[in-house]
Amino acid sequence: MESLGVALGERSYPIHIGTGILDDAAVYAPYVGPNAAVVTNEIVAPLYLARVRAALESAGAAVVPVVVGDGERAKCWQTLERVFDEMLAARCGRDTLVVALGGGVVGDLAGFAAAVYQRGVSFVQVPTTLLAQVDSSVGGKTAINHARGKNMIGAFHQPRAVISDVATLDTLPDRELRAGLAEVIKHALALDLRFVEWLEANVDALLARDRAALTHAVRRCCELKAAIVAADERESGPRALLNLGHTFGHAIEAGTGYGAWLHGEAVAAGIVMAAELSCRVGSIDAQDAARVRKLVARAGLPVAGPALSAEQLVQLMALDKKSVGGRMRFVLLESIGRAALRGDVAGHLVLQSIAAATQ
Amino acid sequence: MESLGVALGERSYPIHIGTGILDDAAVYAPYVGPNAAVVTNEIVAPLYLARVRAALESAGAAVVPVVVGDGERAKCWQTLERVFDEMLAARCGRDTLVVALGGGVVGDLAGFAAAVYQRGVSFVQVPTTLLAQVDSSVGGKTAINHARGKNMIGAFHQPRAVISDVATLDTLPDRELRAGLAEVIKHALALDLRFVEWLEANVDALLARDRAALTHAVRRCCELKAAIVAADERESGPRALLNLGHTFGHAIEAGTGYGAWLHGEAVAAGIVMAAELSCRVGSIDAQDAARVRKLVARAGLPVAGPALSAEQLVQLMALDKKSVGGRMRFVLLESIGRAALRGDVAGHLVLQSIAAATQ
Repeated sequence: MESLGVALGERSYPIHIGTGILDDAAVYAPYVGPNAAVVTNEIVAPLYLARVRAALESAGAAVVPVVVGDGERAKCWQTLERVFDEMLAARCGRDTLVVALGGGVVGDLAGFAAAVYQRGVSFVQVPTTLLAQVDSSVGGKTAINHARGKNMIGAFHQPRAVISDVATLDTLPDRELRAGLAEVIKHALALDLRFVEWLEANVDALLARDRAALTHAVRRCCELKAAIVAADERESGPRALLNLGHTFGHAIEAGTGYGAWLHGEAVAAGIVMAAELSCRVGSIDAQDAARVRKLVARAGLPVAGPALSAEQLVQLMALDKKSVGGRMRFVLLESIGRAALRGDVAGHLVLQSIAAATQ
Repeated sequence: MESLGVALGERSYPIHIGTGILDDAAVYAPYVGPNAAVVTNEIVAPLYLARVRAALESAGAAVVPVVVGDGERAKCWQTLERVFDEMLAARCGRDTLVVALGGGVVGDLAGFAAAVYQRGVSFVQVPTTLLAQVDSSVGGKTAINHARGKNMIGAFHQPRAVISDVATLDTLPDRELRAGLAEVIKHALALDLRFVEWLEANVDALLARDRAALTHAVRRCCELKAAIVAADERESGPRALLNLGHTFGHAIEAGTGYGAWLHGEAVAAGIVMAAELSCRVGSIDAQDAARVRKLVARAGLPVAGPALSAEQLVQLMALDKKSVGGRMRFVLLESIGRAALRGDVAGHLVLQSIAAATQ
């Protein structure tokens, strides 16, 4: 097991990365209260709930399991209400630990539940998907979706720890593995040219689930993200760079109905659109844009948007949280491995870029 | 207008207290964004919304009014969802200011909406009831109720400013004025013997809405609360003393269905029960308990609980957020003007105290 830290003063926490650490009571012990509510979903529960439960019980907690439905549609108020209901029925108090066992949806949902249950209780992230291990479990963004937009209701609530067991990726469906790679590619393109080069050399090993390659990708993404989050916890500055591809991606998810496209798939197409737009505003050249598209394609991810008009997508983007005073802002590439926030993008270039990514 | 401050580092904020300051654009100007969502209720809207709207518009904001139902029953997810819906429809962004115009219910609801809308936006409290001016508008506690308990879902989210116009108390129904006095009495009994003595001399002036007396009560309560909140923002220590009467009070509200008893009425009976319990554990004498009961009665507030058995109330109390590890804790009086938290109270004394307060 290796560990790195997210430096946030009194809200600092460790990220533990290893193989078979999911049921190590010692990693939970510092955080458990008299009881622990394990929020997970119907897919993950049969695979890992018993092991996590045993570890938490060894660490001294009575376990309250809350099993929710699978997929993006579970990130809604109705599911959250069920979590509250079961926690209240079990008399969970302010000293209860919430454990988010699953992918990004479970982490966002359980994290938000922890943020607002009795005005906030502690939680730990136990991500079991590549997407959650490389991205969503770190940084304290929690949320549920609203009919009018993704992640519209939420909180910044840092976990007490992130426990990433890469062995859990063995059971991940191929489609989910690829979706996770979208966020790996995002981190690399936005922040680290050498990591892009490493990905170009290792994307096949990642798709083949080579454990050393996966561990390296998880660690490098966590290092990059931890540094950004430490510098800008609440996304008033550099953290916005991690939204590369997400303005387009959120619109794709909203326009197709949450769940039809996986978040990572939408982000992948969004990254290609952002590269096309970066090219059109003159910050990268066509060769760089092609390089982005090729990497996304090699990861088995979509390089084009859904059957929606560019105009429809732009309309959906206008409601994105990253718009300020009604003006849209975009995370664009200045070069491969370096992103920047731009607020001065002409609308017709956005439309062109979406069209270019649907060809 | 006089101003005092809540010292919370970068989250510090002023409390402005005055007459006719509700529509002073200058008090809003430091906080407004491109737009302001004014959350208020159907009773307050006809009285004050137009004036607040004009002030916010003068300060440069486009106003999005959100008028919700009156009373404790509005503090629920369905109403919150309406606030989100109207804010999203009006394209409110992270730079939107939420204005809570009304009493404690509106403040808690709008404050929680601000806490979680797009992971948190700024808000100001414009309390128009005595209860909100002396207590709930200060300190950043926001919440909605859950069928299984009051204020179970919420957040600590400090306002940017509190704007208390005591002239708005002119339109307050008598019953609401008295309910507000319960929290005034609570502050005094828990923290300040001299303020108790002042209340004993001025309770009639307060009931007659003497503006100087009301202004003094609002200011003194805000001073006391600001000091406690500055010392213990998230209620890990002394802030719990402000829950005097509330463990009993919340159970009364839950047991009678939210809204049948006003919050302040339930707290009043709860204060009498807490005094009876303080007497039974030997920390105050019977004369002190009688003094508490007399002050509550002079304010026109209930000194006895509802037609529920003591056992029923105790069962409801067990789910209170202040219970830790399943063990109930009580805020008791050590003397008139000094409260303390006690975790070692025998169950039969609790039952006796409830019974004593129903005679």
